[in-house]
Amino acid sequence: MEDMIIIGEKINGFIPKTLRAIEERDLQYIRELAEAQEENGADYLDICAGVGSEKELEVMSWLIDAAQESSSLPLCLDSSSPKILLETMKLANRPGIINSVSLEVEDGKSKCDLIFPVIAASDWKVIALTIDANGIPEEPEGKAEVARRMITQAAEAGIVQNRILIDLVVTTLATKQDSLSNFTDSLRLVHAEFPEVHFTSGLSNISFGMPFRKAINMQFLALAMAAGMDSAIMDPLSPDMQATLHATSALLGRDEYCMEYLQAYRDGLFGAK
Amino acid sequence: MEDMIIIGEKINGFIPKTLRAIEERDLQYIRELAEAQEENGADYLDICAGVGSEKELEVMSWLIDAAQESSSLPLCLDSSSPKILLETMKLANRPGIINSVSLEVEDGKSKCDLIFPVIAASDWKVIALTIDANGIPEEPEGKAEVARRMITQAAEAGIVQNRILIDLVVTTLATKQDSLSNFTDSLRLVHAEFPEVHFTSGLSNISFGMPFRKAINMQFLALAMAAGMDSAIMDPLSPDMQATLHATSALLGRDEYCMEYLQAYRDGLFGAK
Repeated sequence: MEDMIIIGEKINGFIPKTLRAIEERDLQYIRELAEAQEENGADYLDICAGVGSEKELEVMSWLIDAAQESSSLPLCLDSSSPKILLETMKLANRPGIINSVSLEVEDGKSKCDLIFPVIAASDWKVIALTIDANGIPEEPEGKAEVARRMITQAAEAGIVQNRILIDLVVTTLATKQDSLSNFTDSLRLVHAEFPEVHFTSGLSNISFGMPFRKAINMQFLALAMAAGMDSAIMDPLSPDMQATLHATSALLGRDEYCMEYLQAYRDGLFGAK
Repeated sequence: MEDMIIIGEKINGFIPKTLRAIEERDLQYIRELAEAQEENGADYLDICAGVGSEKELEVMSWLIDAAQESSSLPLCLDSSSPKILLETMKLANRPGIINSVSLEVEDGKSKCDLIFPVIAASDWKVIALTIDANGIPEEPEGKAEVARRMITQAAEAGIVQNRILIDLVVTTLATKQDSLSNFTDSLRLVHAEFPEVHFTSGLSNISFGMPFRKAINMQFLALAMAAGMDSAIMDPLSPDMQATLHATSALLGRDEYCMEYLQAYRDGLFGAK
């Protein structure tokens, strides 16, 4: 979709089936995940090992090779370790997305401190989580302030706004009734100040602990898109999510003559039954 | 749901299965539709004959009796004929909703002229379509102007704002790319001026001519609710629509601790598989 940056989430060791494929080094399974996500409109392939630190580099490397053998999509390298991110960047065939940085501090340096200088002169994009040394701010003003500090630091390093995807760390609806409004209020504050910055989110945290999570995930996607979220880390193989994505895009007036909706339907991305 | 006025749409002769039941005078089928919609959270039962004018009064009467035998819900009397509406009102056990009036003129009088004086001193509510002698205004300002004239006329007759449900006559997305924004812009204009007025809509016109219509209908419901629509004429027996309704309500912060979402899930309104 032209107006949304879709990051395919399936190559992730935290997903049980993917973890099994990793453990069994089932190359075919990972290749098929990469191909299928590309066919279903992903713009990037998230790559997350989901295994402990000593194995992580080796697993990431294997996943990256598998993905790049079967898809030409750029990668979204997903690790909590800046060291792993910096190592695995070297294996990527083309610039992708670093997932993620924040202002959490370890040994006197934040992830922004470690990553920004390395990617500054490249075309790599970066997902920046609104977390600092004090954790995740509760209020929109606090999230916007952390975003502002990261975007400013990025600018000083030479990274322009549209290479940054802010992740506003959506809270869980089951415990925070205002999770959506907190997210959309935060987004509007940051967007007003930095109009070229992108906004992304994993879609499933919002529904943690709830039954029939996909209903919450689908409507979060729709309502967040209406508020200006222009990227999602999601499952492009889910017909429900695809239907939500395309129907919402058409309703928001972003799909002339509903051509993308109709094409996605014809391609079987949703509505097969 | 506390924050939404749900009008169950199933007892409608324009639905082929319901038409067949009408033709066969299948009392049991209509009774079950009434019961099931009540169990699934409908606040009103729409009653529409869907047959030509000479038969309409007799069919409406039969449907009203059938519905009232098996459900205690108030009715939403649905006819394009003011005469039929005024006749069938007398058969209702309790005040419901007149569906609908407008400023279309016939023999020198509008439907508002004919209906408002009769319901003024009662507890009947009324759905008012934004249509006047010139048809359906294209622009939000035009729709708001027609709504203003109807609400003003109602007030002069003694009908307070919260007895009025404005239907902004949503256009078809396949032919009008701005159908949603036209609807939400119109709604905001009317709401700003008349904050107690309700807004309703049939959900399916938006998706006319499109494949997999339910995807469009679901996201229209969610996005319209976010914009302030607080009523819908819909199928309460559809798990997809129920899931959308409850997930959206919870995301909009209107469902404390997600209690209504959880109860609807436990009651099997959605998520059974």
